Amino acid sequence: MADIAFRRAMRADIPAIVAMLADDPLGATREDLSTPGAPAYQDAFSAIDADPNQFLAVMTLDGAVVGTLQLTFIAGLSRKGALRGQIEAVRVAAGHRSEGLGQRLFEWAIAECRARGCRTVQLTTDKSRADAHRFYDRLGFEASHIGYKLTL
Amino acid sequence: MADIAFRRAMRADIPAIVAMLADDPLGATREDLSTPGAPAYQDAFSAIDADPNQFLAVMTLDGAVVGTLQLTFIAGLSRKGALRGQIEAVRVAAGHRSEGLGQRLFEWAIAECRARGCRTVQLTTDKSRADAHRFYDRLGFEASHIGYKLTL
Repeated sequence: MADIAFRRAMRADIPAIVAMLADDPLGATREDLSTPGAPAYQDAFSAIDADPNQFLAVMTLDGAVVGTLQLTFIAGLSRKGALRGQIEAVRVAAGHRSEGLGQRLFEWAIAECRARGCRTVQLTTDKSRADAHRFYDRLGFEASHIGYKLTL
Repeated sequence: MADIAFRRAMRADIPAIVAMLADDPLGATREDLSTPGAPAYQDAFSAIDADPNQFLAVMTLDGAVVGTLQLTFIAGLSRKGALRGQIEAVRVAAGHRSEGLGQRLFEWAIAECRARGCRTVQLTTDKSRADAHRFYDRLGFEASHIGYKLTL
């Protein structure tokens, strides 16, 4: 029986996380794999790790990192002062897709949002990710919004 | 010449902000105007104000609050460790719509994201807000994503 666990990412996990971010049709064009642990990733990790409202998570299978996502807890006045949990940068390692690990990762993430007192969990996904859309539909998410991005 | 200014929201602004959040077809069903300054809003304000990655902003016209939005700065490993600026809870006061104030508010917000070093500005908007979609299109945002929400 494989042992699945979830924990806060450590600095030593950066290369494994960046490799998963890059191993993706969209991510491949965005990441720098030439020097895993490049300064830009180190600095971003420091900023995430220092922020109590950020939780960069890894999922491990028998101790090896096989998934990641980032939770951001956003306080706001809207909806009677509701806390939101936002999920970004979701990946399951290529060799472990279609094994139900994505669902385990999301069940964990949603439980974590609930434990923190979030009243909403939100995420956006590129319009081209049809498989992801079916996955979020199955999990009970509602595709109620349009996600806009402006590159600076 | 009207004097438009932008500043960090203060606790005394909560009733004005909540009134703007509620004065909206979607927001009307979500907010509690019975006691402006209800504890849930006070607590949320405290959480926002204590978080250096949150910037709840108000726009003033001759000193009166006429607009609001909330910026959240999100560090992440994705896109070579890019910082994102996220915009939530955008409102312009009912008596001041169609005067170009929304555009002024966004120009200010985008400049603020740029000054913080963000490489992306992102937001989601309900699929039913057709006027908002035209507004974001005009500002140069790309409607590239689907926004999913799960209510807990």
